[in-house]
Amino acid sequence: MRKWPRKNDPESIEARQEALGLDGEVTAIDLEPFARAQEMLTGAAVIPVSVVGPIELELGAYELREPAGQLEETGRAKETVFVPLAHTEGGLSASLYRGARAVAESGGFRTFVLADRITRASCFVCGSAAEAIELSRWLEGEEDAIRAWLEEQDDPSLSKFARLREVKTHVVGPMCHVLWRWTTGDAVGANMMTRNSYLLNMGYVMERAPVKPQRAILEANMGGDKKPSFEYFQSGHGKTVIAETTLTEEAVRRVLRTSLDDLQELAWAGTHGAIASGMQSVAFTPASAIAAMFAATGQDLGMVGTSSMAHGAARRVEGGLDVSIRLPGLEVATVGGGTTLPYARTWLELLACAGAGKVYRFAQIVAAATLALEISASAAMATAGSAEFFRAHHERGGLR
Amino acid sequence: MRKWPRKNDPESIEARQEALGLDGEVTAIDLEPFARAQEMLTGAAVIPVSVVGPIELELGAYELREPAGQLEETGRAKETVFVPLAHTEGGLSASLYRGARAVAESGGFRTFVLADRITRASCFVCGSAAEAIELSRWLEGEEDAIRAWLEEQDDPSLSKFARLREVKTHVVGPMCHVLWRWTTGDAVGANMMTRNSYLLNMGYVMERAPVKPQRAILEANMGGDKKPSFEYFQSGHGKTVIAETTLTEEAVRRVLRTSLDDLQELAWAGTHGAIASGMQSVAFTPASAIAAMFAATGQDLGMVGTSSMAHGAARRVEGGLDVSIRLPGLEVATVGGGTTLPYARTWLELLACAGAGKVYRFAQIVAAATLALEISASAAMATAGSAEFFRAHHERGGLR
Amino acid sequence: MRKWPRKNDPESIEARQEALGLDGEVTAIDLEPFARAQEMLTGAAVIPVSVVGPIELELGAYELREPAGQLEETGRAKETVFVPLAHTEGGLSASLYRGARAVAESGGFRTFVLADRITRASCFVCGSAAEAIELSRWLEGEEDAIRAWLEEQDDPSLSKFARLREVKTHVVGPMCHVLWRWTTGDAVGANMMTRNSYLLNMGYVMERAPVKPQRAILEANMGGDKKPSFEYFQSGHGKTVIAETTLTEEAVRRVLRTSLDDLQELAWAGTHGAIASGMQSVAFTPASAIAAMFAATGQDLGMVGTSSMAHGAARRVEGGLDVSIRLPGLEVATVGGGTTLPYARTWLELLACAGAGKVYRFAQIVAAATLALEISASAAMATAGSAEFFRAHHERGGLR
Amino acid sequence: MRKWPRKNDPESIEARQEALGLDGEVTAIDLEPFARAQEMLTGAAVIPVSVVGPIELELGAYELREPAGQLEETGRAKETVFVPLAHTEGGLSASLYRGARAVAESGGFRTFVLADRITRASCFVCGSAAEAIELSRWLEGEEDAIRAWLEEQDDPSLSKFARLREVKTHVVGPMCHVLWRWTTGDAVGANMMTRNSYLLNMGYVMERAPVKPQRAILEANMGGDKKPSFEYFQSGHGKTVIAETTLTEEAVRRVLRTSLDDLQELAWAGTHGAIASGMQSVAFTPASAIAAMFAATGQDLGMVGTSSMAHGAARRVEGGLDVSIRLPGLEVATVGGGTTLPYARTWLELLACAGAGKVYRFAQIVAAATLALEISASAAMATAGSAEFFRAHHERGGLR
Repeated sequence: MRKWPRKNDPESIEARQEALGLDGEVTAIDLEPFARAQEMLTGAAVIPVSVVGPIELELGAYELREPAGQLEETGRAKETVFVPLAHTEGGLSASLYRGARAVAESGGFRTFVLADRITRASCFVCGSAAEAIELSRWLEGEEDAIRAWLEEQDDPSLSKFARLREVKTHVVGPMCHVLWRWTTGDAVGANMMTRNSYLLNMGYVMERAPVKPQRAILEANMGGDKKPSFEYFQSGHGKTVIAETTLTEEAVRRVLRTSLDDLQELAWAGTHGAIASGMQSVAFTPASAIAAMFAATGQDLGMVGTSSMAHGAARRVEGGLDVSIRLPGLEVATVGGGTTLPYARTWLELLACAGAGKVYRFAQIVAAATLALEISASAAMATAGSAEFFRAHHERGGLR
Repeated sequence: MRKWPRKNDPESIEARQEALGLDGEVTAIDLEPFARAQEMLTGAAVIPVSVVGPIELELGAYELREPAGQLEETGRAKETVFVPLAHTEGGLSASLYRGARAVAESGGFRTFVLADRITRASCFVCGSAAEAIELSRWLEGEEDAIRAWLEEQDDPSLSKFARLREVKTHVVGPMCHVLWRWTTGDAVGANMMTRNSYLLNMGYVMERAPVKPQRAILEANMGGDKKPSFEYFQSGHGKTVIAETTLTEEAVRRVLRTSLDDLQELAWAGTHGAIASGMQSVAFTPASAIAAMFAATGQDLGMVGTSSMAHGAARRVEGGLDVSIRLPGLEVATVGGGTTLPYARTWLELLACAGAGKVYRFAQIVAAATLALEISASAAMATAGSAEFFRAHHERGGLR
Repeated sequence: MRKWPRKNDPESIEARQEALGLDGEVTAIDLEPFARAQEMLTGAAVIPVSVVGPIELELGAYELREPAGQLEETGRAKETVFVPLAHTEGGLSASLYRGARAVAESGGFRTFVLADRITRASCFVCGSAAEAIELSRWLEGEEDAIRAWLEEQDDPSLSKFARLREVKTHVVGPMCHVLWRWTTGDAVGANMMTRNSYLLNMGYVMERAPVKPQRAILEANMGGDKKPSFEYFQSGHGKTVIAETTLTEEAVRRVLRTSLDDLQELAWAGTHGAIASGMQSVAFTPASAIAAMFAATGQDLGMVGTSSMAHGAARRVEGGLDVSIRLPGLEVATVGGGTTLPYARTWLELLACAGAGKVYRFAQIVAAATLALEISASAAMATAGSAEFFRAHHERGGLR
Repeated sequence: MRKWPRKNDPESIEARQEALGLDGEVTAIDLEPFARAQEMLTGAAVIPVSVVGPIELELGAYELREPAGQLEETGRAKETVFVPLAHTEGGLSASLYRGARAVAESGGFRTFVLADRITRASCFVCGSAAEAIELSRWLEGEEDAIRAWLEEQDDPSLSKFARLREVKTHVVGPMCHVLWRWTTGDAVGANMMTRNSYLLNMGYVMERAPVKPQRAILEANMGGDKKPSFEYFQSGHGKTVIAETTLTEEAVRRVLRTSLDDLQELAWAGTHGAIASGMQSVAFTPASAIAAMFAATGQDLGMVGTSSMAHGAARRVEGGLDVSIRLPGLEVATVGGGTTLPYARTWLELLACAGAGKVYRFAQIVAAATLALEISASAAMATAGSAEFFRAHHERGGLR
């Protein structure tokens, strides 16, 4: 084959399959519904999905209050959900199930969305730091004007769903980095904020700035797009969510086979281990749960690392152990991208999270499921440290 | 339903599907081959796969030299591969293709495996720092004895594939953290090193240590299992791989529509942006390529974040721009786990990477594909900063 | 001696000196002027001071614009200063001198103050994350009321110099961390903001919060007081200052004995080395210059590490190499604390920086001196890499 | 004055003093003993010194075991010391005193040196990553030969006190970073390892490497010289020291006016605050104590930030609260540099730490004093959160 065919018409698809000698199951699934999802479509990957529940949780309902776009809690309700997990890691589903059961017996999860912002970080390279500082000062004074200008554009490339909320500048040498912070509705919004940021950079900043930058760079790494960073960990990128529960002594003993003291000591040692190894996050295994939920529901798997940034904490309280996880930037969607495709759509529907107005709900369910796995995985570490557990398993022959 | 059925026999699977009201495509795929992959199996997720190529690369062949387990390069060969990408991000496959083409015109990729180690980080909590220090000193002197002991165990829980290579201790307060560093053959080896580390902790350390620790914790976060950390970024976790190419002026101009100077300036601004935002990695979008390769080939998607830690660099050299990416810990497998399952197995076979003796090859192909996307995504940023590009797109109506 | 005397009356001082058998020079200096500077005064330390110059710089004049407290540049002027350096590191003064000379021949330094804020980070521990979130939302809505309340207090413990500017909350588990951000005039202001924050915590938050926290902690590490952190590196703590210059080819060749290309390549390698080792800063040796300026002028030496956080950058521009350093949080004072004491006062006066209204000037001079040393130290690294330099020194016998 | 005089003969010193119009106390101190300490000597800075004690501690005695240079503990002994603190921060000495007293009543400090290594990080820039990898492999195999070569040099620039212990390489792009790890006796050794590393770079590597690097850079930021980094925090730079104590309930109540529970809760909140703000260290205010000890004893004040990197931990144990601090890289000396000068020498002598064979002792005393302040400062935070404390102070009028 002289040139690799790149279209997604049936002939091109078949040409690629033939050239590679592919047949059998990977080419047996109907690719037609995926034809616009990506280029050079050739086959399919299948990941088995478990469904785990019941997960008992108390969810918040949220709305953005205009014009500033602060997030407001408008209600809370208790619910029971079953979560789909696409993965091939033996034990993961069973462990998450066990965690969910311990929490259900302890009164359920409580979940909260704290913030909703996503950032595209452009950079304007000027002739000197002096010029970059001048640009930065101008931009800070221009924030309202920029927002107004953007609202009145009818450029077809502009997305009306992505609304500019704040502008932050950071000057280093001759670079004026600009963090455009957006809300993007029920989509993650990477593409829409890219288009809008690009329009802002070229149509507004490069045209009107008192200092003409030598170069505009659409993304220069300050925003955290698919790259964990401290900025991301602290300021978020997507939905900032907290899931919490108060584990009872009884549930921990009966379901998790350990004790509150053991869990607390593990949290202490694990927190110091995280510090000793230079983790920006502090948690045991949030990525396992998040990847499994993302793969089932059509989320962007390139965002597993960032969305799994987490800060867990445990504290003895009246009645048990308060455990919680803070996910500073869950990059989740219930519209657009992979969420509209077959399979993914069905799994979102199972959660009553398909379509508009569902993204805060979905983010909270993901956080609750993540905490369920955290709790159970921690308990396993605690149990494993005991001599009894070791002897029992050692004699029986093998852990698993 | 009073209790959620947890088995994977056909009746339990069907009971779950019915209870959830699931039918149609998600339950249509034969789940039987996946029955041992995870618990509470209920349906399937499908991700479309593109195949992109040709990718021209010069690969190293590697072997572990026993007994110490250093990695040795035993040969190098040029090859052409086509890579499967499972994702739903429009533009990703086309961009990776473009990057691969620019590299092919520049003479291809060169890839290298630098190291092969994976760590399970246990923690022994002692009564004081004094005791933890004593334990640490003892462990350092015991390294050879530990290795010998492990070799002679015939405990059925022990994995012979996971071989202990180094032992490192790190004392903080009364905690003696221990980094057990392993090689695990062609598997990622998370489970095997867990089992062996557990045996070491309970069967050796807790039995023989001159100071009896109060508690052994199997994993206390220093190892980097599914959690990005500086320790991970520097010392690796899996295969440490570098992919490199020397882009020619001509290829950059013709294929990428930008210039060497523009790419270099982008690398400079992006590096400083990464620093300014507290990224431990420095790269543009490695997670996109890695997630797509992982999803197609049955890798652990919970490891996308860690495996995407990266350090890219660009430098003008005679004949062009040297660009490279260092992936300190690619957690990839060609045997075990998801790699043995249908679909995944086929995509690995397409790469001639299925089964034993293939993991270094696979790691290098992943690195090359990742660099292909890095190059093209960077070029897009560079082009986008120009007024010509803006005007053309603006007039045409929309970027995409 | 049964109990260590702790007062600073002449008898107590003498009692300590005798008990320790101290005499000679350390007890010869008159301690009377230092009697209120610290407890258990017993003797003196002397550090030799060099004076290096001329340093040619263009400084900005700045004012806080009330009521919001943004920093505004009100003018710029060229000046020549000589800087006092208290230290015992051979070569440091000579190197800083060389850097200053190269810059003078290149047209001088340009310095800028970008921001002025200092943070005290309290923490309210609540009964649950739910309560901490409620507290956080209340605090965000209370910002104006808090400021007004503080203005009208006439509590004698309150400092009127420390003015509250912004309030930021950060919830993790049941903790509601609160970053109280202040301006503190020409003092560093650690004590004044401590007193005011304490009053706020106990007199306002603990009294009025809709959720009664279980505990108020005055400082719980988010603020960056004497501890480098990413938050500090990005958001500052004290004065955020940039110093910049454009080195000419001629000055670099004649004074620094290297070339623009060599300096740029060093900046590139040093930046990547910083990333590879997990530095939050990127610079060569800012702490050397800052410690020497601090020791001479009565600044808090415990703040050397934080005030030395730095982000340097270099870029080829028309006419030379643009080099700059960003110091996100210079914790400097021209009133209060050690600046009022003998010796320190004299060295501040030499810079025309003693007393009120001088702190922005002083911060800029420190930044310029720091950049002078950066440039010269970098040049030394560049020269040292050449074979000629090595041979010359090797034959002569010794580097220094 | 046409040119700034740079010599330290009496005429040049006087010429500078006159040109600057300096007289009075800053020029009254005899500068002659400082004439070789730095260039352009012009006057003096004086910092008042308190002496605080008794500090009760159990110290280890240590030796390097040749040829590999591991640190070995050869004995332990109890001692009482009084520490000199040069600073002007009201309250610091009193607080450190209070902490020391609480520890004395709890049985004293126990201190340990864990390691002794200091690193100079050179970088060889090659033509490609392929070449850098080749160089790296060669260097790893050359370690013994390099050490032998160095031992037999009689180059006058070589320091025999600085002995090469380990060699570590880290390849990023075409850069082969090399961490030369040394022991340097009782000096910090920055200069000696610089000279030896330079000789190695130019005389060995550049002469013999199978791949000729394009450039050798003596220091490219991986080593941590005066710059805090994660590498520094984990692997150390100087002496790695731990100080520990077990606070009793009684001592905490009587001396510190708080409780073990309050201290533990503070440690918990402070640890999470540190994580939330991206601190690489976890401690309250180590830099205050370290700067004061450094300024009194002639240490390098530019190393205050790095030497203050710390990892504190607290845990309830039988009989009280185990509290400890790990200082990964105390850069201290008892010979050379500022330690030989008047004043500094006297303060070192007070500690029985002047001269050869004293550096491990000195490092442990610094660590104990640092922990004394940590404990007292933490207790102050704990007390301050109580309503009683607030009311008492508020009514009396002012905290301090």
